Amino acid sequence: MPDTEEYRGWLRIALEEARAGLAEGGVPIGAALIGADGSVLGRGRNRRVQDGDPSVHGETAAFRDAGRQRSYAGTTMVTTLAPCWYCSGLVRQFGISRVVVGEARTFSGGQDWLAENGVEVVLLDDPECAELMAGFIAEHPALWNEDIGEDPGEG
Amino acid sequence: MPDTEEYRGWLRIALEEARAGLAEGGVPIGAALIGADGSVLGRGRNRRVQDGDPSVHGETAAFRDAGRQRSYAGTTMVTTLAPCWYCSGLVRQFGISRVVVGEARTFSGGQDWLAENGVEVVLLDDPECAELMAGFIAEHPALWNEDIGEDPGEG
Repeated sequence: MPDTEEYRGWLRIALEEARAGLAEGGVPIGAALIGADGSVLGRGRNRRVQDGDPSVHGETAAFRDAGRQRSYAGTTMVTTLAPCWYCSGLVRQFGISRVVVGEARTFSGGQDWLAENGVEVVLLDDPECAELMAGFIAEHPALWNEDIGEDPGEG
Repeated sequence: MPDTEEYRGWLRIALEEARAGLAEGGVPIGAALIGADGSVLGRGRNRRVQDGDPSVHGETAAFRDAGRQRSYAGTTMVTTLAPCWYCSGLVRQFGISRVVVGEARTFSGGQDWLAENGVEVVLLDDPECAELMAGFIAEHPALWNEDIGEDPGEG
């Protein structure tokens, strides 16, 4: 069984992706899909802005980057931010075993629903993830609302 | 309010996509995102096989094809097959108002959950959709299981 130290190591990868997204002018959410053996199967970041593609959330980007897999049993999705319903649905449908969440302060998604449906959810409550996201939301509220399907309002 | 005749017209678009996918050797599921005014915002099909990309389900392809939208209020996702958890999560997160389902005989996804959470769900129970999918599942059980995150087994 991986421990908190290992989870934090995986979160660094997701954070690297999130920071790269921020540098590109994008929504700073990153994720990685980790194999049962601890290897990185895929990694990615939200690319709504960069690609003009609303379907690319951090988790779906990491899932896509991993390519076709025979099974997701034993895999972990690590993400800087609590997964939205779209990404929670991805985790449940494909039987990803565990979700490691950087922070759930700025957004609360489907993590309780996942836990109720047999997914192991680990909340690291990482201050760096929370600061990154809070800063982005304060600067770009309309873009953030668009990304989670809320009315972007003015701006 | 659109009526069943209009829903069936939209389903033809999704069916065209599904049939194109089958002709390409792919999983024959198609979808379209319809605007509040009845216009086609986006359309697409499952491309797991064609692109080697497990993130492209019919619904996510149609959503992506529509590009960035300010709001999904009043939109309809029409799909040949009941939406899986991944695609149901997409619908819920982005506030797509209605889902028109071609058939739910061969697969039962998150449509009840969507209905419980305020999404209008219309089940057309279209025999052509059901035959297309049943034929594909009989011929390619391993590929179908892979697409919904079940153990593909032998073959």
